[in-house]
Amino acid sequence: MKRILVIGGGGMLGQKLAHRIAKKELFGPEVEVSLFDLSFPAHGAAGSEITGNIAAPGVAKSLAAQRPDIIFHLAAIVSGHAETDFALGWDVNLFATWALLNALKDEHEASEGTYQPRLVFASSIAVFGAPFPNQIDDAFLSAPLTSYGAQKAASELMITDFSRKGFIDGISLRLPTLCVRPGKANAAASSFFSGIIREPLNGVEALLPVAETVRHWHASPRAAATFLTHAATLDTQLLNGRTALNMPGVSCTVAEQIEALRNAAGSEVVGLIKRDPDPAIASIVKNWPRDFRTDRAIELGFEAESSFDEIIRVYLEDDFQR
Amino acid sequence: MKRILVIGGGGMLGQKLAHRIAKKELFGPEVEVSLFDLSFPAHGAAGSEITGNIAAPGVAKSLAAQRPDIIFHLAAIVSGHAETDFALGWDVNLFATWALLNALKDEHEASEGTYQPRLVFASSIAVFGAPFPNQIDDAFLSAPLTSYGAQKAASELMITDFSRKGFIDGISLRLPTLCVRPGKANAAASSFFSGIIREPLNGVEALLPVAETVRHWHASPRAAATFLTHAATLDTQLLNGRTALNMPGVSCTVAEQIEALRNAAGSEVVGLIKRDPDPAIASIVKNWPRDFRTDRAIELGFEAESSFDEIIRVYLEDDFQR
Repeated sequence: MKRILVIGGGGMLGQKLAHRIAKKELFGPEVEVSLFDLSFPAHGAAGSEITGNIAAPGVAKSLAAQRPDIIFHLAAIVSGHAETDFALGWDVNLFATWALLNALKDEHEASEGTYQPRLVFASSIAVFGAPFPNQIDDAFLSAPLTSYGAQKAASELMITDFSRKGFIDGISLRLPTLCVRPGKANAAASSFFSGIIREPLNGVEALLPVAETVRHWHASPRAAATFLTHAATLDTQLLNGRTALNMPGVSCTVAEQIEALRNAAGSEVVGLIKRDPDPAIASIVKNWPRDFRTDRAIELGFEAESSFDEIIRVYLEDDFQR
Repeated sequence: MKRILVIGGGGMLGQKLAHRIAKKELFGPEVEVSLFDLSFPAHGAAGSEITGNIAAPGVAKSLAAQRPDIIFHLAAIVSGHAETDFALGWDVNLFATWALLNALKDEHEASEGTYQPRLVFASSIAVFGAPFPNQIDDAFLSAPLTSYGAQKAASELMITDFSRKGFIDGISLRLPTLCVRPGKANAAASSFFSGIIREPLNGVEALLPVAETVRHWHASPRAAATFLTHAATLDTQLLNGRTALNMPGVSCTVAEQIEALRNAAGSEVVGLIKRDPDPAIASIVKNWPRDFRTDRAIELGFEAESSFDEIIRVYLEDDFQR
């Protein structure tokens, strides 16, 4: 029997992950899934829901005390919010990770070393900041330009060190921008990458705030869920101590996104995209990674979509509801 | 009048720095120097000595309340000690930095943004871990293989983010191994790099635990003190947000070190070096950086010695006492 804990299990990706765990026999025939989050959707994925704040005192300790075999740590204050609330961002995105790691170390020691859980941490390509080469490779420095990126990068360092010491068995996945995100547009500067596909497919106008030449790095929410489950069962010896991995994805321009939408749904749908240049968003997006060479992740068996056409197909299969 | 605070001002490098500040008019004619440390040498450098533990509650706050214009943060649990006392290493090497940064941010805010001190942080090439290329360049990833390296790298991320937000004006210097260290041998795995020069010059036998082919990255304590003062007055706009810099140094093999000693002091002195292979030390040292290309630091005006002969000359001038 495998005990699985998803911290951030109420969010978009946490729910995708929980659905995937419920559908497939990835972790053997018997699994017990706990989902921890501030709140949950009304008709969410299967799992015992635990409502709470991972950054509150004692919470990490009580979750660790259950000694889950596999822990997915997806909970975070998003990028824009971490910029506006500096203290909250560090508190949740770094210090809650620290509290969790220490609580797991305590359990490791209390078990005389027999308890050593797999921890899969959702990091982000936000650990990278401009200037960068056209393709970022596996040896490129992490020099974040946002608090969120700094918090993710510092968490990765802690996870690597706790793993090197054998207290946990951790791995950090630097996720691409997830596209096409289902649901409503949010306040993130990256929101339009999904919006220009999702809204027109629903017959709704979408605003495009940047030039069509903007290139970025994408993977579907489905691909992200498969990264997480693959990481949960990977032989971490193969990481050779470098436990943070750039995840594969699709590098494409906004123009290529739009052509993929035209292929999938026709020119009338594409006509719902309205150019509405926003210099503020353009100036943020110009500091974002454009392309990666993810040799390590590919060798280790992580797989993303191979084109933006495929990303749209995945959205239509998994999430499209007119 | 410039107010300068040296955290770790009682240590070898802190004292070199304090002597340098006292001797040269680097910061204008009037400076007030405070040295903070657990303890101080009996006849130490000029400055008001404040005895305390930077990791103790409230200490960072009381130091920040003095609103120093320039803060050198050199205090650390050394590499070997941070490996054996995991909690202490994180506490002093990361969380004391965090407390200091927050205390400075509080002063920044209380001053309505007028107080924005220069913070010069002593980081280390321990932020790098094998495998690496023969020469590490300015864009190479930080993937430490020690807790000390992880703590320094995480501190750098915090300093960059607090600086980006304008709370402080920070810079982190990744120092080479300091050689030749004056004084007694210590328990550090790197101790022999200095020992094989210092001991023979004093007519004392020295043990060489590794092969003469081992290549490493060195700078003198004098060079390190000049890095620190240069960083204190540098135009940090030139850093373009990447506030952690690899410092210049001398890349040489142990054989080249020994030849430099022969040039300086003759073959009889060299004869005092005894081969005493230690597989434990050899296995640590093989994961250490061998060489760097420090283009950014050199463009910004940081200067180290240009040969190991020069490093020995500096030792003889500054520290040699038979």
